[in-house]
Amino acid sequence: MGHNHRMPAKLGKNGIKALLFDVFGTLVDWRGSIAREAQAILAPRGVAIDWPALADAWRAQYQPAMDEVRAGRRPFCKLDELHRRNLDAILPGFGLDGLDDATRTQLNLAWHRLDAWGDAAPGLARLRRDFLLAPCSNGNVSLMVDLARRNGFHWDAILGAEFARDYKPKRVVYLAAAQAFDCLPNETMMVAAHPSDLEAAAAAGLRTAFVARPDEFGPGRGDGAPGAGIELAVTSLVELATRLHV
Amino acid sequence: MGHNHRMPAKLGKNGIKALLFDVFGTLVDWRGSIAREAQAILAPRGVAIDWPALADAWRAQYQPAMDEVRAGRRPFCKLDELHRRNLDAILPGFGLDGLDDATRTQLNLAWHRLDAWGDAAPGLARLRRDFLLAPCSNGNVSLMVDLARRNGFHWDAILGAEFARDYKPKRVVYLAAAQAFDCLPNETMMVAAHPSDLEAAAAAGLRTAFVARPDEFGPGRGDGAPGAGIELAVTSLVELATRLHV
Repeated sequence: MGHNHRMPAKLGKNGIKALLFDVFGTLVDWRGSIAREAQAILAPRGVAIDWPALADAWRAQYQPAMDEVRAGRRPFCKLDELHRRNLDAILPGFGLDGLDDATRTQLNLAWHRLDAWGDAAPGLARLRRDFLLAPCSNGNVSLMVDLARRNGFHWDAILGAEFARDYKPKRVVYLAAAQAFDCLPNETMMVAAHPSDLEAAAAAGLRTAFVARPDEFGPGRGDGAPGAGIELAVTSLVELATRLHV
Repeated sequence: MGHNHRMPAKLGKNGIKALLFDVFGTLVDWRGSIAREAQAILAPRGVAIDWPALADAWRAQYQPAMDEVRAGRRPFCKLDELHRRNLDAILPGFGLDGLDDATRTQLNLAWHRLDAWGDAAPGLARLRRDFLLAPCSNGNVSLMVDLARRNGFHWDAILGAEFARDYKPKRVVYLAAAQAFDCLPNETMMVAAHPSDLEAAAAAGLRTAFVARPDEFGPGRGDGAPGAGIELAVTSLVELATRLHV
């Protein structure tokens, strides 16, 4: 009956049972990937623009779009839908008002084809030996699933915004993820490259780890480590695994 | 950057992109496992009862408890919580009114330690090459996660009752699972050992496969195949993989 692949070992170390991960920026290089995907789709159509600038402009619409949902002015919808509205909003600025609907749809799915930083998959594989793992991202389930298949992430569950039906940094998103794993907040660690995400997780009672992604917004333009209030600061998920496996 | 583990291949075959699985009875032997776990916990305390009868009595409370939620008379809660209420309800019938709270809690987690039928893990591994896979069970996320770790199931996401915040066979549970994968109902196939589950999935527009589990309720006491309305009937998940990989 397949007893050989059973895992009798009790999970958890240092009082931590589950790790939750931010994804955009923390695990995957959204900026470089969006620039590459946009070029691959649009250059053959004769478009020649600043591709990283398109990625930056698209991402700049991200927080304001979610604010509408967080504030209760719009009902919850998948991030894919917000990404599409944001794309429609920025295209005129690049002289692309006339882009047809099918191409916009294809371009919007570029967010499902982001590439991971080199340490992400091997780091997650090591962390999985001792901890339950889930993304706690604002990306929707299908987006997380596609990124996991593409990059070889093995999650225990897909948690985050679509599961909680609200967007980070709302407290309910972190708490719903911990509760889904039957974990107390202080048995759960949020891992992210952004101080604001970690501050909100800590305010909800979670433990926190900062992973530096110095090139997230372009070479040398990532967030710095928070000044205080985090438990660990690392430069890769492999280092995180080493620090937690004690 | 780990390009070697990327999956560029397009998923899906026969117009099906995602497979959803019932779990209790379809993937795991709840009856034999609960009987074994109850005996392991209670026999050392001097209890000698009919262990499979305890499993049957506990399971007999399952549908009535969920009916309270389906009908809107109780707010949604995790199946773990319903299992605990049901356990408290049946213990007196076995002369176990005096069982202490800690032992009840331990016994309730027996549902997280169910063993899979022998074909489940190898069948799922084959099916994963071509399809997105998720449980669509009434069991909660943490229960599904523990069964997956124990039995070597690699899911893309954990969908089902806790994700939809209602219980099968309510239509919303099947539709929420398909939508989470960005699939139309008719791009999604429900796989189950129970005709009632498949009938509800079909009524919601999903495709359906019946897998026979002739010993689910005891030797030779599983559900028979539905008379009509299913697309496939198989005797194992390995057979399902063979039938769908055409």
